[in-house]
Amino acid sequence: MAPKTNGIGVQVEDTRICVVMVGLPARGKSYIAQKGKQLSFVLVTSSPGKLRHGPGEPVAPVRRCRPGARALRDLADKLPAQRYLKWLSIPAKTFNVGNYRRNDAPHPSADFFDTKNAEGERKRRAAAEAAVADMLKWFKEEKGVVGILDATNSTKERRKWVIDLVEKEGVEVIFVESKCDDEELIMANIRDVKTTSPDYKGQDPEKAALDFRERIRNYEKVYKSVNEDGDEDHLTYLKIMNVGRQVIINRIRDYLQSRIVYYLMNLHIRPRSVWLSRHGESMLNIEGRIGGDAGLSYRGEEYARKLPELVLESVGSDRPLTVWTSTLKRTIATARHLPKHYNQLQWKALDELDAGVCDGMTYQEIADQYPEDFQARDDDKYNYRYRGGESYRDVVIRLEPIIMELERSEDILIISHQAVIRCIYAYFMQKTQEESPWVPVPLHTLMKLTPRAYGTEVQTYKANIKAVSTWRGKGSTAKHEDPAPEGGV
Amino acid sequence: MAPKTNGIGVQVEDTRICVVMVGLPARGKSYIAQKGKQLSFVLVTSSPGKLRHGPGEPVAPVRRCRPGARALRDLADKLPAQRYLKWLSIPAKTFNVGNYRRNDAPHPSADFFDTKNAEGERKRRAAAEAAVADMLKWFKEEKGVVGILDATNSTKERRKWVIDLVEKEGVEVIFVESKCDDEELIMANIRDVKTTSPDYKGQDPEKAALDFRERIRNYEKVYKSVNEDGDEDHLTYLKIMNVGRQVIINRIRDYLQSRIVYYLMNLHIRPRSVWLSRHGESMLNIEGRIGGDAGLSYRGEEYARKLPELVLESVGSDRPLTVWTSTLKRTIATARHLPKHYNQLQWKALDELDAGVCDGMTYQEIADQYPEDFQARDDDKYNYRYRGGESYRDVVIRLEPIIMELERSEDILIISHQAVIRCIYAYFMQKTQEESPWVPVPLHTLMKLTPRAYGTEVQTYKANIKAVSTWRGKGSTAKHEDPAPEGGV
Repeated sequence: MAPKTNGIGVQVEDTRICVVMVGLPARGKSYIAQKGKQLSFVLVTSSPGKLRHGPGEPVAPVRRCRPGARALRDLADKLPAQRYLKWLSIPAKTFNVGNYRRNDAPHPSADFFDTKNAEGERKRRAAAEAAVADMLKWFKEEKGVVGILDATNSTKERRKWVIDLVEKEGVEVIFVESKCDDEELIMANIRDVKTTSPDYKGQDPEKAALDFRERIRNYEKVYKSVNEDGDEDHLTYLKIMNVGRQVIINRIRDYLQSRIVYYLMNLHIRPRSVWLSRHGESMLNIEGRIGGDAGLSYRGEEYARKLPELVLESVGSDRPLTVWTSTLKRTIATARHLPKHYNQLQWKALDELDAGVCDGMTYQEIADQYPEDFQARDDDKYNYRYRGGESYRDVVIRLEPIIMELERSEDILIISHQAVIRCIYAYFMQKTQEESPWVPVPLHTLMKLTPRAYGTEVQTYKANIKAVSTWRGKGSTAKHEDPAPEGGV
Repeated sequence: MAPKTNGIGVQVEDTRICVVMVGLPARGKSYIAQKGKQLSFVLVTSSPGKLRHGPGEPVAPVRRCRPGARALRDLADKLPAQRYLKWLSIPAKTFNVGNYRRNDAPHPSADFFDTKNAEGERKRRAAAEAAVADMLKWFKEEKGVVGILDATNSTKERRKWVIDLVEKEGVEVIFVESKCDDEELIMANIRDVKTTSPDYKGQDPEKAALDFRERIRNYEKVYKSVNEDGDEDHLTYLKIMNVGRQVIINRIRDYLQSRIVYYLMNLHIRPRSVWLSRHGESMLNIEGRIGGDAGLSYRGEEYARKLPELVLESVGSDRPLTVWTSTLKRTIATARHLPKHYNQLQWKALDELDAGVCDGMTYQEIADQYPEDFQARDDDKYNYRYRGGESYRDVVIRLEPIIMELERSEDILIISHQAVIRCIYAYFMQKTQEESPWVPVPLHTLMKLTPRAYGTEVQTYKANIKAVSTWRGKGSTAKHEDPAPEGGV
């Protein structure tokens, strides 16, 4: 009867959105489209849905209370109900028309993109058709919610064609255009593309750049910005001008659309990197205890003194950097020898996952005192919430402003904690909810993440200062254990 | 040294924002400005900050674990730590220049607003000066974060004057313009203003409307839309055209700005109402048990059959209405006799506050079995989170999409639960966090909320079908208790 909604209250059965990228080459479209996949990460929600409310699931009897005093055991019996909280993410996927076209034409030269080239036109059209067909299949068969069509879609005719195909399947269309006339930025993107695009693999970079500029000129001949002539005013669109300096939003209709638009308008396409480091080894790390607010160990102090050198090696001395730490002593202490001209900012949202009643315990103590909890956490580490504390999912939710602010920032160095770094890493590297809580993030190691159009690059800098391992394998209660060999970042 | 941030990670000590409304009269500015105050409600955050991290507070020693088995008592000792979670809202306040001007000129006629009227100009300038001065004082002395200046600010000169005054105090300026040429909507707003504006109190409505239109014409003579001439491109602004059909966002700089813009762009200024009702009396209500997923009692069924009549009386028969329920049986059953042509939608986010391990208990049982929890909840009902369940604040956070969707919707009837209705009511009526969890929301009662430029109107429709009271006074463990006489909605 009445349509069901998912946790965030969007009518999932009804709402499916196709985000159609628009814009000339080298305007950061693929970068934005790739980011769109990460929507799944920021569209998680804290709204609870117990098993007994799940569609199609049996309605469990209301739990009746047994009067009288209860022992801890009774309480523990009830607590695993938390594991049944239904957390929902929005499934999102990108369909890059270029990838389809490359099957047919792996290394096309610029004249392939000339509208007068009939053969090129046919192949490009076929690629677009294949991408849209796969997207519609994904909506239907895999219950996709946000599909992203990554292509130039630079003419009114092409946009009309997409709308006609997609809307007749009951999918809403949002056009997202990146418009940019900042020559320097376009050149930076051209340099980036000629070195990373599969189209120019193995080719001379100078020739590739020339060819790519020629390709852009072919597109410019027919390019129409969305609603440039005023006859596309009925469309739902987001137009991002010069890297978000100005944004125009037209006819956004519902909550999910507005969340997508909000996320995309926070992105920018200027090249930059994000550096991640945990605090130096702490006194509690040595004891194998979690949480707390301890100071650094002797070796942790050593890392703090070494960090400026690692950072300068990776960032360079002339690049401005902003440093974000948590509000806990061990991250602030780790940041304190960094160059004075770096801005520093403390965020509560970067504090370590709150282990609640288990704060300050060893894993062995947790396993002894809260065996059901210990087991529950291993069974579903992403969703398990410590009593009086947090789950990884809670951390992801409180990181939403950090992610948004990261997306609109230039170079940032984050000095934080194991669980928090895992979540930020998972966002950029598109790790699943199952994987992310188990990612090894060793102490005394600096990571550099560089988001690019076709994925995020990682570089690792080791300080070569010994530290205990705080990684823990499933089921283990060891104080210090080496990460499984197949893991590692 | 490093600046502190608040829970959502905004540099509170540094970030203060002045939202400056722009637009002709009857464009919904005061409505939007008034909504701005409600920002405090949607900008709450789930990020934890323990007492030991609070600025200026003593750093508590890390809790060390006592090995061995623990009794419930020990666990309970630790749980009140939850009460120390530091939840932060953003303090927001509106400064309406008209209110200041009315001190000097309570019922001015249209020619007062003629730019050639020197006396009028002087008084209006003085009112603006007083409003801005009070706002700056509020930022300084009461640590305000978002101040909203509600006035027409319809010339470049006036905007420059505001910027100069405000920015030199280190406050960021966002202009929010409501631009509208939809004659029907403007007329609706004029009708609304002439009946609700203090300027026309006790005057003949027809004469008031004529005078108000004349006033608008006086403003139109000098009105310049923000950046209309292209020389205000350096300003941070949000331009809402024709009730959000199109939105332009220029130079938004940080997370807090983008959250404000996101909220404001979801508002619309079309007249509408929101109806609220709890489900009919349930079997568990009769037993005085909280939570659960019970069906309706005999009297609850009676209410469900009576509801269509109450709704038709209040809404009228020709007005389309959308009905939102929770996913729990008792709200769905309450909605099932409503006219078939109403759209119905089930939201998980409208489910009752999750009482965790106390789900299905009476208050007496909770007091017996979890005495510390019972006390803790009474001490701070808004922030107290049931073990394995939710706090009012958790409910507010999961209601954020509901609030956003409500703001962009037309007429909506919400059939939900006591705690959820309290939160939605608190949002519209601007109740404090202390008040909202204690608001009496009797069963078998329909409420109509109509947001207006100068506050929200409430009408109540009683079904005259008996039901138990589920209101509970502080410290009480009664199953059914009448609300305190001073309370009541």
